[in-house]
Amino acid sequence: DDWQVITRDGVRQLERVFRFDDFASALAFTNAVGEIAEAEGHHPALLTEWGRATVTWWSHKIRGLHRNDFIMAARTDKLATEH
Amino acid sequence: DDWQVITRDGVRQLERVFRFDDFASALAFTNAVGEIAEAEGHHPALLTEWGRATVTWWSHKIRGLHRNDFIMAARTDKLATEH
Repeated sequence: DDWQVITRDGVRQLERVFRFDDFASALAFTNAVGEIAEAEGHHPALLTEWGRATVTWWSHKIRGLHRNDFIMAARTDKLATEH
Repeated sequence: DDWQVITRDGVRQLERVFRFDDFASALAFTNAVGEIAEAEGHHPALLTEWGRATVTWWSHKIRGLHRNDFIMAARTDKLATEH
């Protein structure tokens, strides 16, 4: 699993799946990503499932990818190393 | 928005979108649903986005819908009235 650039509904997005041992760990990670999202005022889509969290970044205003999305992806990776 | 029975990858699932005023409220709801999921040992897919949370229930073992999924959907609705 690594970041992939996908196109969904015509919008380019950065998406990565993070694996965890259980649901609670995945949800804890979702909350950690949510915290940096709130701090930056830039919000991803966070799909939480048993054993995995899928994080999707894109810039709503430009309906695509901006430099900031790549920065947030890198910050998400850093959070993952702590979870 | 109400519960819909959808079929994804050949698996029947119950899905509903809940609307919120912001990201934090959506994430708080995701956590509340996560709490009852952990308590029951039955885990949905929870998609958290700015202003909305999408909850999807199904029974992994039978790859489809079981009575318990409808019970969890009703409990999710009850949580929504408190959020």
